[in-house]
Amino acid sequence: MNTTETPAAPQFPKWVGPVIFGLTAGIIVVLALLAISIMERRWEAQRPALVLKPIAQWEPNNAVWGQNYPREYESYLRTRETGTRSKFGGGPPRNYLNADPLQVILFAGYPFSKEYNQARGHYYSVTDVSSTKRVNAKTPGTCWTCKSTDVPKKMAELGVDNFYKQHFADLKSAITHPIGCQDCHDPATMNLRITRPALREAFAAQGRKIGDATHQEMRSLVCAQCHVEYYFRDKYYLAFPWDQGKGLTVEDFIAYYDERDFTDYVHAVSKAPMLKAQHPDFELYSQGVHAYRGVSCADCHMPYRSEGGVKFTDHHVQSPLLNIANSCAVCHRWSEDEIRHRVETIQTKVLATKAEAERALVQAHFDIAAAAQAGVADADLAAARKLIRHAQFRWDFISAANGAGFHAPQEATRILADAINEAQQVRLDIARRLAAKGISATPKYPDVSTREKADAVMKAFEASQKVELL
Amino acid sequence: MNTTETPAAPQFPKWVGPVIFGLTAGIIVVLALLAISIMERRWEAQRPALVLKPIAQWEPNNAVWGQNYPREYESYLRTRETGTRSKFGGGPPRNYLNADPLQVILFAGYPFSKEYNQARGHYYSVTDVSSTKRVNAKTPGTCWTCKSTDVPKKMAELGVDNFYKQHFADLKSAITHPIGCQDCHDPATMNLRITRPALREAFAAQGRKIGDATHQEMRSLVCAQCHVEYYFRDKYYLAFPWDQGKGLTVEDFIAYYDERDFTDYVHAVSKAPMLKAQHPDFELYSQGVHAYRGVSCADCHMPYRSEGGVKFTDHHVQSPLLNIANSCAVCHRWSEDEIRHRVETIQTKVLATKAEAERALVQAHFDIAAAAQAGVADADLAAARKLIRHAQFRWDFISAANGAGFHAPQEATRILADAINEAQQVRLDIARRLAAKGISATPKYPDVSTREKADAVMKAFEASQKVELL
Repeated sequence: MNTTETPAAPQFPKWVGPVIFGLTAGIIVVLALLAISIMERRWEAQRPALVLKPIAQWEPNNAVWGQNYPREYESYLRTRETGTRSKFGGGPPRNYLNADPLQVILFAGYPFSKEYNQARGHYYSVTDVSSTKRVNAKTPGTCWTCKSTDVPKKMAELGVDNFYKQHFADLKSAITHPIGCQDCHDPATMNLRITRPALREAFAAQGRKIGDATHQEMRSLVCAQCHVEYYFRDKYYLAFPWDQGKGLTVEDFIAYYDERDFTDYVHAVSKAPMLKAQHPDFELYSQGVHAYRGVSCADCHMPYRSEGGVKFTDHHVQSPLLNIANSCAVCHRWSEDEIRHRVETIQTKVLATKAEAERALVQAHFDIAAAAQAGVADADLAAARKLIRHAQFRWDFISAANGAGFHAPQEATRILADAINEAQQVRLDIARRLAAKGISATPKYPDVSTREKADAVMKAFEASQKVELL
Repeated sequence: MNTTETPAAPQFPKWVGPVIFGLTAGIIVVLALLAISIMERRWEAQRPALVLKPIAQWEPNNAVWGQNYPREYESYLRTRETGTRSKFGGGPPRNYLNADPLQVILFAGYPFSKEYNQARGHYYSVTDVSSTKRVNAKTPGTCWTCKSTDVPKKMAELGVDNFYKQHFADLKSAITHPIGCQDCHDPATMNLRITRPALREAFAAQGRKIGDATHQEMRSLVCAQCHVEYYFRDKYYLAFPWDQGKGLTVEDFIAYYDERDFTDYVHAVSKAPMLKAQHPDFELYSQGVHAYRGVSCADCHMPYRSEGGVKFTDHHVQSPLLNIANSCAVCHRWSEDEIRHRVETIQTKVLATKAEAERALVQAHFDIAAAAQAGVADADLAAARKLIRHAQFRWDFISAANGAGFHAPQEATRILADAINEAQQVRLDIARRLAAKGISATPKYPDVSTREKADAVMKAFEASQKVELL
């Protein structure tokens, strides 16, 4: 065989070549169009200023923002959903007083003893504040502050002080949009911004500038505009108990309120000058390991999502337990079941210790009432009343916060330990003062195991002002 | 220029080629020898059976094992060092009674009120148990169990029951080697093994087989042979309070001891039937996140090291805070300062709550004594004495464990909260019982702020059996 001779090439019809060429060219054009389309969409998502409609400075309508940011808006709309819940929190409104009737006693003398429901999602903020029984003719405009995107515009119009001074009812017609986009975002740049004066003023009170906050810090601070402990200074001005040289611990706040002789209500049973904690989520979180490691509120409650190659922040603010794969599991590479189990174990322990604190507090309120009834002078009851004020604020600092203590498990348990210690010391003090009056009988602690029973107990007490002794 | 003509090659002398060849061959030979040497050393390290001297089944002498395992042995010898300490634990022996004189009162009636020092490293186990004042003529041989590598051999010789039944002093001459290699290792295979019967029996009591433990579990279980809560059943037999269908929580153990009416000592002040907790390190750790994530004792307290390409386990058992880079930082990629700060923050909170529990407990002991002195019958004091027994065991479960609660921060704080709650309930009960006797005076709580004062208080009380009233 002659090795220099090449074998004969196979023969195809003449049209095959041009057809393959044509097909290849066609496929390349289609792929190129697809690539252009993908790039264009990504470009749109990443360079919104080029294609988006301008949004007015105080635009309250979330739907308007939603035209430019449909993904964020659509996920925000899911805060309407109430069908899902975690074991101890999440979705649908819970009636705290039905679930835990001891709170009827603990808040006796304050509207929270009449109605206390778990908040629904941000979408319902205007609806829910408009229908709560805790609002009455004396409620100041201040109570709108955290409820609506209409607030910053109205504050700019009236001035902050004047806004707070309005009657709640007088602002009602101007306030219609629930918590939303403009509470946290600058419409021109979409940067996070602080729209509520109280947080800015609290930073100033501590000699810190909120403008120095990093973007990652802002991802918590926009939440801290509302998810904090606050009070009404001079009965109308929204303020946080933050002080120069102090921190954000429960001890700092108790000292702050004591120095100012601030009281939320006088307890109907013990006549103690009580404090009601709001939802000190940011402060409790600040004591936990997630804050220590620089994890923000948004990292867990608004984790990133991806759709069609576009990464965006999920604005369906919710319990991370309802979205473990995108929140916890980003850092904790465990199974969802393991993560849920760990979180619930922590929460179960917090709630058990919280229940102990509640029992001690309820009994302490009745003990003080029994002492007053026995003729112990108010001056001799002052120490006990001050101590139960502290004890119950500690308990409430954990009870009223979201997350069942998970934001800082050890800190939550430590605070509850102190609440228990103080509540029991109140009871000891009272037992000794009763003994000094020659009384060894103990109060007959009423059965408050259901909402109905607790309501009946308070009704009877309010009528008679009497504690039965054993 | 003719492109087909190649340029002239440079000319070298004829000897250059052979010399380069010779040099290259020489370098290859040297490198090969080096590689063989390295491989050989690694081989030696990894296939000890081929080159190591056999070690006898019950060889107690750590130095003999050290001939085969010099790295492990040399690092073990560093448990001699007492010069370094962490903020709340670590190195040199601390005198707990001097540091915290309230413990003189809490353990009144028990040898721990006379001498209670922090244990030194494993190297000192025989020395320290031989010189403690807590050992006396009645001390059983059982107290040697955790102190020496001579124990398994002696147990094999005498039988376990008989070993425990010896007088402590009678075993002294046979027991000379401190805690070491053979306590945890099989000399033939170097596998981890359980040499002490109590842990094996405790597993059996719960219907579990310790032989099913994985290697990673064994890296904690060899420690759990000793770093656990235990008691002497029938006054001599070493047993753990583990029960079928129960867990390892403080509640499980209290139930266990109550069911068996087991008491370590009668309290000198309150006459309550007390329990002394040992160091329940394994149990507390089991409640924490490290156990939950499968991290073993050895992972933190005996982390891996590398020397000359050989990886080995550091047998210098110590606080991970003294070796952060090789322990914590393997998983937690933070700076050493950040890690230390986080751990100390947790420990500081535990210790603050622990101090609150101590104050309440000391006062409760004096309250009960005052009631007894006032003529309250023992039957009427039984509930209070039982409650203080539980309260103090809870406190001691955290106080006596190593790590200042770090092994399970929330669990430690939860247990202390319950201790406080019970101790204050004792005080309330007593105040009411005193009131029933017409006594409103409170005990004059003595000053126990220094060791000397606490000792003097106990000396005076033991002589008079009297509590002064205010």
